[in-house]
Order: sequence, then structure tokens, then C-alpha cells
Amino acid sequence: MIKPGIPQGTRDFSASVVRRRQFILENIRSVFETCGYEPLETPAMELLETLTGKYGDEGDKLMFKILNNGLNEPGNIDKAKAGFENVLSGKSSTDLTSRALRYDLTIPFARFVVMNRGTLSFPYKRYQIQPVWRADRPQKGRYREFTQCDADVVGSTSLWNEVELVRIYRNAFNNLGLDVSILINNRKILSALAEKCNASDNITQITIAIDKLEKIGIEKVKEELLSRGMSSEQVNIIQHFLNISGTNNEKLAALDELFKDIEMGKKGIEELRFVLEHAESSNPTLDLTLARGLDYYTGTIFEVKAPDTVKMGSIGGGGRYDNLTGLFGVDGLSGVGISFGVDRIYDVMDTLGLFTKNLEQSLQVLVLNYGESVAHIAAAITYDLQQAGIAAMFYPDEAKIDKQFKYAEKRLIPYVLILDEKGDKQGTAVIKKLNTTIQSEIPINSIVSHLQNL
Amino acid sequence: MIKPGIPQGTRDFSASVVRRRQFILENIRSVFETCGYEPLETPAMELLETLTGKYGDEGDKLMFKILNNGLNEPGNIDKAKAGFENVLSGKSSTDLTSRALRYDLTIPFARFVVMNRGTLSFPYKRYQIQPVWRADRPQKGRYREFTQCDADVVGSTSLWNEVELVRIYRNAFNNLGLDVSILINNRKILSALAEKCNASDNITQITIAIDKLEKIGIEKVKEELLSRGMSSEQVNIIQHFLNISGTNNEKLAALDELFKDIEMGKKGIEELRFVLEHAESSNPTLDLTLARGLDYYTGTIFEVKAPDTVKMGSIGGGGRYDNLTGLFGVDGLSGVGISFGVDRIYDVMDTLGLFTKNLEQSLQVLVLNYGESVAHIAAAITYDLQQAGIAAMFYPDEAKIDKQFKYAEKRLIPYVLILDEKGDKQGTAVIKKLNTTIQSEIPINSIVSHLQNL
Repeated sequence: MIKPGIPQGTRDFSASVVRRRQFILENIRSVFETCGYEPLETPAMELLETLTGKYGDEGDKLMFKILNNGLNEPGNIDKAKAGFENVLSGKSSTDLTSRALRYDLTIPFARFVVMNRGTLSFPYKRYQIQPVWRADRPQKGRYREFTQCDADVVGSTSLWNEVELVRIYRNAFNNLGLDVSILINNRKILSALAEKCNASDNITQITIAIDKLEKIGIEKVKEELLSRGMSSEQVNIIQHFLNISGTNNEKLAALDELFKDIEMGKKGIEELRFVLEHAESSNPTLDLTLARGLDYYTGTIFEVKAPDTVKMGSIGGGGRYDNLTGLFGVDGLSGVGISFGVDRIYDVMDTLGLFTKNLEQSLQVLVLNYGESVAHIAAAITYDLQQAGIAAMFYPDEAKIDKQFKYAEKRLIPYVLILDEKGDKQGTAVIKKLNTTIQSEIPINSIVSHLQNL
Repeated sequence: MIKPGIPQGTRDFSASVVRRRQFILENIRSVFETCGYEPLETPAMELLETLTGKYGDEGDKLMFKILNNGLNEPGNIDKAKAGFENVLSGKSSTDLTSRALRYDLTIPFARFVVMNRGTLSFPYKRYQIQPVWRADRPQKGRYREFTQCDADVVGSTSLWNEVELVRIYRNAFNNLGLDVSILINNRKILSALAEKCNASDNITQITIAIDKLEKIGIEKVKEELLSRGMSSEQVNIIQHFLNISGTNNEKLAALDELFKDIEMGKKGIEELRFVLEHAESSNPTLDLTLARGLDYYTGTIFEVKAPDTVKMGSIGGGGRYDNLTGLFGVDGLSGVGISFGVDRIYDVMDTLGLFTKNLEQSLQVLVLNYGESVAHIAAAITYDLQQAGIAAMFYPDEAKIDKQFKYAEKRLIPYVLILDEKGDKQGTAVIKKLNTTIQSEIPINSIVSHLQNL
């Protein structure tokens, strides 16, 4: 008999963890709902062709692919063999694996929008809270199954959507008691920077290098840019840009100056100005070093940083994409979205002790079992309590009373109800507050109202 | 460009479906919580060895197995090839697929209990609501991804648990407005029947045959039993048993007579009598033809049937198992559990029209966009409404007002708020109830209180 285990990078969530996660998700969900976002759920499995090539080579490698069933049936064997050869040469094959597990929520969302564009109302505002799977090397804060929590609007180019998303971030994190930094930037600014350097073709490399700034520092970023064939003059322009500091308005003024001849830059500044002004009460920070890794962003980009007291980095991010559905053959649907990193938010809140004790359990009363002669009365009282909406449990076994008390303690149940033969004869029961000397003897028929008042 | 799709047997859940499913799940969850069951969530993937052999040959075939990553790396190729050969010969191999998707919630639960038995409080009452995956041939009411919703108690042999589970079924279905039949039987009765036939070795075959009774009728069941080598005398005893009818008490009396010399039978009757008596207010029906397919049941078994007006069959089931954790090397933990067939319950409620209209959406107000000059005021009103807990949305684009009204209609938003330039100058806005002529002009600063009162 092998000792049972679970796959590397996955986790069981016991009761207190599930409750705390629910607390986070319900808070975020209610903000989404209040702003008119609608829920969507997509299948865990997508067709391989839906996912392949959407996340770069790395993504294709880290995807969990599902072995086709019935490979050993006569009609399938030859194709399966050919598919397996493909896999051994580093490719994937629908003859071996025609499905894979969801890698994020964005591509399934785009796929859904394209499939249902005839019936959806645009602007389509949806939120989605589901697990995704990646075969990443497990490490602290990185799991192979983790929950994504996304809100997106598609079919609207209005910057009021960006304003709303900044507000959603602020309100949701405020509700959770987390004082986060909400950083924003705009991909058009980065494009303008590339243009300013006469390096528009190198926009991706510049973005990738800037994206590493926080991790590796300015000197290494410069080295990387030089090693990628950029001149020191170009690198100087980039460094000058990265050095822009001050308040949001001071930074905007510096950008006005830097990009006064660059149309793309002026457009980016205008967009940033609109969002920063109208979302001012949510206190976003213009961070010109913010780049975001993903290719498909074309306008505003967002990132949320945990409070400085916790070393965690990004706990949320997103941005505007002008052609996500184009991946599935439908052009012209601009969208913008944000994501909450639920597992990291959990870790941050846990570190900061922000989960309240009352999340631990819901059971209010344990009704003790004093044996056959009174069990049916004790059970009936339990059912009355439950009917009145009080979470109550009748201890099912005739165990030693000590053991039953220990059970109440371990499960953090605040009240214990004692109904023994003597009580039954007198028509009374004792309600005892656990870990205190507080207890009261009350008539059986007022137990419900007594506990409702506690 | 290929037209996008989703894997056969899987579904996207749009907003109204998600909300209706949540309505079902929240109702069931609150009953679980009120009775002291704690939530558990386990990973979608389990180690192949955890699942293999637990669901019979059929289960092994219908499991979704996950291709190991990095098969083309030098150290893995030879093993992968050997593993693939195994698969082609109808076996499975951890060298090719070391993980598989959860096939039900019971085995992961047993695995969890064994892994955490040192820290859990017994009796351990847990509920779990998560999707499971089976490569069944898709058909009406049968999906490849579907949700299971289970409650189990382990570490207690008390029949009070069975009583509670019957009550949970009744209360949950009452909350959903479904008048179901709750059937119960006991495996010990079926064992006694086998003993009565001098066919204790054939207990599994008898169980399987009886399980088919409703589908194929008594004559075919008899044929099947005869073809499996049972004598006509034995088959007569079984038929006599299956013909027992009347009230619960009449059936129990007939069993008393039938099994008066069979200890196992007397034990089964005693258990049934206890559960039927103490759960009487939940109106369970003793159904001696109830057998349940699964091997591991040893005592009480449950099944829930949808109202007769809907042809759906079982929408829930469960039973007592004395040695589930024995599969993972830990004996002596008896348990009992029930399951709700969420997808079927959904279909039944849909057929009966039991979902109320207000589940369709949560958005209360659409604030129209009359262009740049007043947009910031309209947005500010929207935020005030949201802050007051009223789900409100500011239409982000300066679209034609007609189009904005159509959007409100399509999304079933009950109220539209009109703030144009004229209103802005007067300090008033118009609130219009959609699809009616009801509208009122009110001062901007009383919009929130006005809508709160509607």
C-alpha cells in the first residue's frame, strides 16, 4: 500500500482555508456585480487548438494536455503512434491529446465571445473566477493549480472602462483591508519611446527589458539593451525616460516635453491624463517603468502591488487589448480587463493577520449526546435550532462527555448544550459557553430563543 | 482560421445559468453549514495511483489522464516509449500519465482523510462542491464535466448520521421547491436476502440485477439471475422479496418474518427501523428494490427521485461504507454520505419553471451617457449609487441614446437614469422605469435615496 499523496504544486484546502478564500472571492465578486459585470464559467478543458500558440513557446510547454481516450482502439492506434512521435520531437498532436486544461481565463473568454457574439449585449462586461493549471516548477506563491479572478469589458473603446477598473481595484482591496499601490502606464507611451529611439521594430525587446527593471536594476537593463544591439545614444534616451519622477502631473508634464513631436506619445499621454484625472479618488500611480509582459496589450496597463511590508510583488494586473478576438478570426472588438491574484492575496492577508477569527467556522452549538434515553430529545432540539437558522450539531455517538467537549474545543464551537436524564425530567437544559465558567440552566422550550439572543 | 469550439460534452455557463446554479448550490451549502459540515476542496488532478482501480475497469477507461510534461527530455524518452506501449495495450502508465482528473469526490475525500487523520476532529463532517470529469459518451443529462455536491461523516457508526442526512435531503429539496421522493434501503438486507437464497457468494450479482429492476423489469431480472446460474427456487425467493409492498411499517413487518432466522437481516431491519422512525418527519420511503451500483456500501443506502412529472430518475444518492479509507491502508473508519446531482437538479428545476426571474441579473440602473459635457457628473452619480450598494453601470460610450436603451432592455435592467445637459443645468435627472411610461424627475442629490426606496 503506497502512502497517499497529491500531485506536486497542488493543494487540499481544508475548511478554514476554503472559508478565507471564499471571503476574498465574495468581496471581489460583490464589487464586480455592483458595477454590472456578469458571471461566466467555461470548461476546465479547452480544445488544444484553442490554446496552442496563444501563450508563446513557454506556455505550450507548460500546458497540461489530456491524453485522448480509446487510443488502443483499432481505428486510433496508427494516428496515436504518429502523434506520440510528434510529442517526442517536442511538438503537440491532437491525435494524442486533443484537449488541454485552461491556462488562463482570457483566451477562453475571447473564445466564448467569438462563439456567442450574435447573442451577447455589447459592451459585454463579464467576470470569471475559476482555477487554471500550469506545469510551472512549484515554489513559494506559485502553484500548478491556482485561481484566477478576472473582470473584462469588450466592445467598448471608452476610457471610462479603465476608470471603472481602477475604482474596482481600489474598492475591492479596501474591502479586504489591503492598502495597495495601483500602478498604471500605457503601451502607447512605450511605443512612443521606441519611436523616439528610432527603434520601433525593437518595441518588444524594450518592453521586455523594462519589465525586468525592478528585478535586475537599471544597469543590467542597460547591458541587456546594449547586448541586443541598441546604441548607447538609444539607451540614454530610455534611461532618461525611466528616470522621470515626481507626482503623476509632473510625470505627465515631462512626457509632454519628451513626446511633443510624437503622435503616438501624445495619444498615450491624453489617455493617461483622462484615466488619472477621473480615477483620482482611487489614487492610482503613474509608473513609467511598468511594462507588463504580455504581447497583446495596446493601451492602458495596470498592476497592483501589495503593501510594502509584505514582500510579494504583483497581486493583480491587466490592460487594454485591441484585438484579442482577432486570434479567433473576429476583428474590431477592443477590450480591457483586470485580474486579481487570489492565491497571492490570500498569502498577503494571512501574513498581515487580516483574516478575522469568525471566518474559522460556522457551527454555533454542539448538543451533547447523553445516551439513548434522551438522545431523541437532544436531536429534536438540534433540529429546532437548525430550523431557526442556528448552525447546530448533535454529537452522533454515545461517547464519553469529556471526548465530546474536546470535539467542541477542537472545532472552536462556542456553545455546548447539555441535556441529560436529570435535565429531561426537570424540562431544562444547560447552555455552557466553552472555555469559560459561564453557563445557564433554561427551560427546554426556550432554548432556541435563548441562543438566538446570544 | 478554424471556427472556435469547446470539447464534446462540456459547456460554457453564461450569466443566467451561473446564477441559477449558484442559487441551487447556495441553498444546499447553507443546509450543510447549518448542520455543522465543513467545506473541503481538493485539487482537480490526483495522482494516477490514487484513482486507478477504484472505479472498476469502466472507470479506469473513462478517466481523463494528463500527459506528463517534458516527455521529450532525454531522461524521459525511453520511459515514455515504454509507457506508451502500455497504453496501446489498454493499460495505463505513470511514465506517460502520472496524473488524472478527479472522477468523483469520494476517493479524493478518503485520500484526504487518510493523509490528515492526525489533525482532523472525528466525527469529521465535510461537504465538497466541485466539478468532476468522465469521458462518458455525452447525452442528454450526461456531461463530461459536471458538478458533484457531497456531504459525508466519517469516524462515527451512529445511525443519527443517517437520520441527519435524510433530513438534509428533505430540507435542501424543500428549499429548492422540489417535492422529491427519498428512498432508503440497507445493504445488510440484500446480504440477508443472498443468505436466505444460500447464495452469499453471489451477493454482487444479486445487487447488480436488482439495481436494473426499474430499467428492465422483473422478468428480465429473473432471466438475468437464472442465466447467472441461480436456481428457480432462489429466484422465487428474490421475487417474493421484491414483491413486498405497503407502508414502511408493513414492509418492515414482512422483513421481520422473512429474516427471522438471519442475524444479518435482523441487524439490517433494526437499522432501517431506527432511521425510518427518527427521520419520519422527512418522509423517507423504504424501497426494498433499491440496490445502488457501488461496491463499497455496507449499510444504509439512499436515493432521491425527482418528482414524477419530470422524467429524470435519480437526482441524488449515497450510503454507508465501512471501509473506504481501507483503500489507502487505514482501516476502521466507518462513514456515511450523500450526493446531490447538481446538473440534473438544474434540469429538473428548469423543466418545472422553478427559477425565479430575479435570478437573471443583478444590475438595477443604467446611467445613460449624454456625452463629454455631462459624462463626469453621470459617472459620479453611478459611483454614488454603487457606494450605496445599488448595482449601477454608466454606459461607457457616447452611443446613440436608442442604442443605450436597447442595451438596458437586453440586459433586463429595470431602471434607466437620464442626465443630459438640460438636466445638469437644472440640477435634476430623470429616472425611467423600463418598458413602462413611469418616470420621475428628481434633484441630482436625491437620486440615491430615491432609488433606494424603489
